[in-house]
Amino acid sequence: MKTIEVTLNEKRNVRLTAFIQDVGKEYRNITKRPGVLVIPGGGYMFCSDREAEPVALAYLNAGYDAFILRYTINEVGSWPDPLQDYEDAMEYIINHADEWNLMADKIAVAGFSAGGHLAGAAATIAKHKPAAAILGYAVLNEQVDEIATNAPRIVEEVNYDTCPCFLFAARTDNVVPIHNSIQMMDALDKAGVTFESHIYAYGPHGFSTGDESIQTRESAFCPRIPNWVKDSIGFLKDVMGDFYVGTAEDKVLTKPNCKAHITDDGAAWLSLDCTIGRIFGNPAAKEALADTIKVMKEKITPFRPDMTFEDMMTTLSKMKLLDLLQERSIDVDEEKLNEVLGKIPNI
Amino acid sequence: MKTIEVTLNEKRNVRLTAFIQDVGKEYRNITKRPGVLVIPGGGYMFCSDREAEPVALAYLNAGYDAFILRYTINEVGSWPDPLQDYEDAMEYIINHADEWNLMADKIAVAGFSAGGHLAGAAATIAKHKPAAAILGYAVLNEQVDEIATNAPRIVEEVNYDTCPCFLFAARTDNVVPIHNSIQMMDALDKAGVTFESHIYAYGPHGFSTGDESIQTRESAFCPRIPNWVKDSIGFLKDVMGDFYVGTAEDKVLTKPNCKAHITDDGAAWLSLDCTIGRIFGNPAAKEALADTIKVMKEKITPFRPDMTFEDMMTTLSKMKLLDLLQERSIDVDEEKLNEVLGKIPNI
Amino acid sequence: MKTIEVTLNEKRNVRLTAFIQDVGKEYRNITKRPGVLVIPGGGYMFCSDREAEPVALAYLNAGYDAFILRYTINEVGSWPDPLQDYEDAMEYIINHADEWNLMADKIAVAGFSAGGHLAGAAATIAKHKPAAAILGYAVLNEQVDEIATNAPRIVEEVNYDTCPCFLFAARTDNVVPIHNSIQMMDALDKAGVTFESHIYAYGPHGFSTGDESIQTRESAFCPRIPNWVKDSIGFLKDVMGDFYVGTAEDKVLTKPNCKAHITDDGAAWLSLDCTIGRIFGNPAAKEALADTIKVMKEKITPFRPDMTFEDMMTTLSKMKLLDLLQERSIDVDEEKLNEVLGKIPNI
Amino acid sequence: MKTIEVTLNEKRNVRLTAFIQDVGKEYRNITKRPGVLVIPGGGYMFCSDREAEPVALAYLNAGYDAFILRYTINEVGSWPDPLQDYEDAMEYIINHADEWNLMADKIAVAGFSAGGHLAGAAATIAKHKPAAAILGYAVLNEQVDEIATNAPRIVEEVNYDTCPCFLFAARTDNVVPIHNSIQMMDALDKAGVTFESHIYAYGPHGFSTGDESIQTRESAFCPRIPNWVKDSIGFLKDVMGDFYVGTAEDKVLTKPNCKAHITDDGAAWLSLDCTIGRIFGNPAAKEALADTIKVMKEKITPFRPDMTFEDMMTTLSKMKLLDLLQERSIDVDEEKLNEVLGKIPNI
Repeated sequence: MKTIEVTLNEKRNVRLTAFIQDVGKEYRNITKRPGVLVIPGGGYMFCSDREAEPVALAYLNAGYDAFILRYTINEVGSWPDPLQDYEDAMEYIINHADEWNLMADKIAVAGFSAGGHLAGAAATIAKHKPAAAILGYAVLNEQVDEIATNAPRIVEEVNYDTCPCFLFAARTDNVVPIHNSIQMMDALDKAGVTFESHIYAYGPHGFSTGDESIQTRESAFCPRIPNWVKDSIGFLKDVMGDFYVGTAEDKVLTKPNCKAHITDDGAAWLSLDCTIGRIFGNPAAKEALADTIKVMKEKITPFRPDMTFEDMMTTLSKMKLLDLLQERSIDVDEEKLNEVLGKIPNI
Repeated sequence: MKTIEVTLNEKRNVRLTAFIQDVGKEYRNITKRPGVLVIPGGGYMFCSDREAEPVALAYLNAGYDAFILRYTINEVGSWPDPLQDYEDAMEYIINHADEWNLMADKIAVAGFSAGGHLAGAAATIAKHKPAAAILGYAVLNEQVDEIATNAPRIVEEVNYDTCPCFLFAARTDNVVPIHNSIQMMDALDKAGVTFESHIYAYGPHGFSTGDESIQTRESAFCPRIPNWVKDSIGFLKDVMGDFYVGTAEDKVLTKPNCKAHITDDGAAWLSLDCTIGRIFGNPAAKEALADTIKVMKEKITPFRPDMTFEDMMTTLSKMKLLDLLQERSIDVDEEKLNEVLGKIPNI
Repeated sequence: MKTIEVTLNEKRNVRLTAFIQDVGKEYRNITKRPGVLVIPGGGYMFCSDREAEPVALAYLNAGYDAFILRYTINEVGSWPDPLQDYEDAMEYIINHADEWNLMADKIAVAGFSAGGHLAGAAATIAKHKPAAAILGYAVLNEQVDEIATNAPRIVEEVNYDTCPCFLFAARTDNVVPIHNSIQMMDALDKAGVTFESHIYAYGPHGFSTGDESIQTRESAFCPRIPNWVKDSIGFLKDVMGDFYVGTAEDKVLTKPNCKAHITDDGAAWLSLDCTIGRIFGNPAAKEALADTIKVMKEKITPFRPDMTFEDMMTTLSKMKLLDLLQERSIDVDEEKLNEVLGKIPNI
Repeated sequence: MKTIEVTLNEKRNVRLTAFIQDVGKEYRNITKRPGVLVIPGGGYMFCSDREAEPVALAYLNAGYDAFILRYTINEVGSWPDPLQDYEDAMEYIINHADEWNLMADKIAVAGFSAGGHLAGAAATIAKHKPAAAILGYAVLNEQVDEIATNAPRIVEEVNYDTCPCFLFAARTDNVVPIHNSIQMMDALDKAGVTFESHIYAYGPHGFSTGDESIQTRESAFCPRIPNWVKDSIGFLKDVMGDFYVGTAEDKVLTKPNCKAHITDDGAAWLSLDCTIGRIFGNPAAKEALADTIKVMKEKITPFRPDMTFEDMMTTLSKMKLLDLLQERSIDVDEEKLNEVLGKIPNI
């Protein structure tokens, strides 16, 4: 493992620490690695050490390369400097991806508190969008105004292009109200973006990984809090792919189990992950799927003799076609159908 | 373990199954047990077997007595019949608490889908309020109208008297949209009620415990889903108390780690769990805490030489006094102070 | 779930309790279930309640049917009565397997302390051999003499036909010395039988599931102890097969990941799970595998230019052929080769 | 975190890598850290990278400082060079303990395969004994002769002074037979030394942490294998103390839950952790405990009216006095009694 310290901006004291693990040789098919960029919190007044290395170590321990961004704090600058720092860091990382055997398109961010605000900005409005964002007790709405001037409220910036998000916080957080995370879920839900969230019944603000070695526990501390670490790793594997444990020369990660969006209705081309309404409303798609629709008709209409197939499809219009095929055990060649649909513009 | 089948309402085919575990003797200080009333889902059209016994077994396995309520379904009745069934069930259980060595005030509900709607009604508008409610992919807002006529939208019924809630669901639920759970969190947050929530990135509706023995997995299934079971048990222990593992003649459960409300500002009497604003705004309380306030002043003012102690307290007015004392390591006799405050009306 | 109480022997007060879960309908492809027969401990003086229902509930919770055997205790009989009780219980269970939708060949035993002695006898010398045996802080060697007269020391009865065993105990057990479990591992190792074992650093005798609801904890209690429950369920899934979560009409369990023996060298017919020595020493096998051996030669000899292929095979003679093929990524049709070898007598 | 590379012996290419985490400041009472020295395997032919950094990261992630020893391999030396390398490494570490804010008496070793042999030598015959030894699929008996000439068989070197050991391996290990671990347990048991062990049903040799990012899994891989990592951390906390999560100026670790020996019968002075036989056989101890013995007599004799108290104590002579006091809920001032006994020579 190499540790590399980079000064991204001397005047504003912006520093990037890179922990780059070995690849190949004994690691066999791990010839490149995905990564996590850690963004500690501190109210834009400082960068918390407790939310820096211990977090990086958690992801290093799971096989990821890890980075820590110590961004502009208020003594030396103000918003949007931290966002620019993020962009500089990602650019630096991407530029060194080959040298570091890093998968440039598989870099997530993990931000805490004010760092969660910056990670949220990365997830929504940044030029270099991460593959996923882990947002820990993050400042995401009105509270933004308390820690930064002219900074965006992240919940208002969420749209279809926002990356998948993993949120966690303690319900009793008395520094960043839980409302921040709830409104973020609401925004992600409305935008159709993939997310996972864990709100623990009680605990202080700023618990970092929740490990015993991190923080004294003067106040009540929900014993489930430390679970967020392994759950977030599971989430990264779900949305970016897991390490491939078979033997395949050029395969480092598996195909993700979970797409970035709940449906592909917002995508440029159709797929089985579009809703039934979307696909059945597209004449070219209906024609291309004629055979499949015939099988569906045979299999599905017997369930509701009181309805026509068309009425049933209207009722189910918000369901993904793939979900219906799987739930009804309708055996189709998914790959082939996706290929066919993938050539039909989603208009 | 005794299994008891009770018909609560023959006409509407309402049935209560009770699984009552042994107490005392080799179980030593377990002379009574807390319980969980399981309410299966089924869109008020049926009562799902998959959300009945397997769920009861999970809580039995953790030392709880368990109950299954099979309530009125649409063939034979409609809302508010199911709520009445719940009240009848709880009354029956409470009336048999002594006979069954059950802690009548430590009975939680666990409802799924439409059963989550009924559990939500129990948590908010029922006469026999449970000690906690576990709400699995529950129907809680507009979707209520799709499964029942004249039934309450639970999110609109939440208030200070709602019991602590544990919510879980899959973000991609295509039957009960995740919005139900998000709006419920929002309502609980606004009402100051304790809750925990786990929204898993993907999975089908109706996964019950998520165990391999419950359900085929034709569609994508987030591997973290089954965690909700042990997490919900942890939550019950947090809000109702855990089994006491020391030796104490008449002690079955520990004191809960987590109160039912975020603060005691809504309670009839003051406590250290009231906010600083509430306590400092009450002249009797200020007088009673004079000594403590003096120590606080000495300890806290050095942190911000630019502010008066009174201004600092104004800034921190929404913080619980207990949190401040703990965070600043101000050593007080919590029990004694709570006793003193507990005699001052919260007006 | 049905609870059935059977008196197997009135005079000796031998009782079998059966907990039979529902199958089919909403459980889809779970049309039959595997089972676990729980044998509580008590030094053959009594049958411990703490090691009866709580243990049954753990396996019920994982989808298994569960049984509790309350066997002959010293007031009314002595060895080999308990073993006869076990045989009677298994016979009763097997005779009712169809009626109860039970997989008669997938029934494990789980015994504790003296019940672990009886479970060990089931695993080694019983007529009705279980599919696997879970042995908790079991009496297995010299200590047998202290609790029963003329009873076998289980460690001396282990042979190739012993079923797979899962052992657990606390290193500081001051009632049944840990030596019992260590000698059992040694015997299972020598006999080539599959086993798993977990010896926890400290804890009392008789901790049952280790759950907080079971036992006061006056003395030091290793926090890892309760893990044995889920680990034993994982072991049962490994050696008996896991619930099948796809859709397949007549498939309830998957193929086990782990065979009952370390190699098939003791089996009647050859397989890829025989050692290289065994297979290469059998002329018929060598001929049948001629093509595979040719590929192996090409792939393997380059690794050690200083050795002939034959010498290499001699060096590796105790390795399973399957292991070598997999480690060297030699792509063969395992199923077909096993079919071929399965027709060659292992002589 | 600082990474420091030290060449301990240039000629033999012996290198020590130290990963030293920050202390104090935001880590509050973590003013010093315990450490783990990782010793990779490789049959004394090489030092495996897969058993070096990934293992170090696991302990770093848990708050420990971590070290990797790359010791003498066969090209440049032979036994006892590796042991000397270990001594040199420990000496270097201890000499830098103050500078690195390290607890010199809380350093464990974690060795794998041949590295497990070296770690076993450290645990038994080294001058600088570690506080605990983690032995992964370690070479400990006859197999030693296959990898080194004139090297000790560890199982033969175990005595009362051996440090607490945590063993793990796969039952089907086809490189280092499981017998190595079983014999080691036997030796530790006979010597009265604390240990914990986890033998997983199946898996290959050399699985390191078992994480997906470490190793391809061509062959069957028991899903419980990766648990050894967190279990070993739990063990270290049990025998060396856990991080203290309250507020106490000079307290970094808690008192260990688990002593290094099963009883204190081998210690220089008596304690409540000596057996009843040992204490009752010591006239000075019997006199010093006169009051306690009186209480014991009153409490215990009613249980067995057929026996005298003296006979009962003879029956229980191998039980620790502390265990008896706790099991019978005999309330004594443990600290005070230990102080009294601690002045009586154990002769």
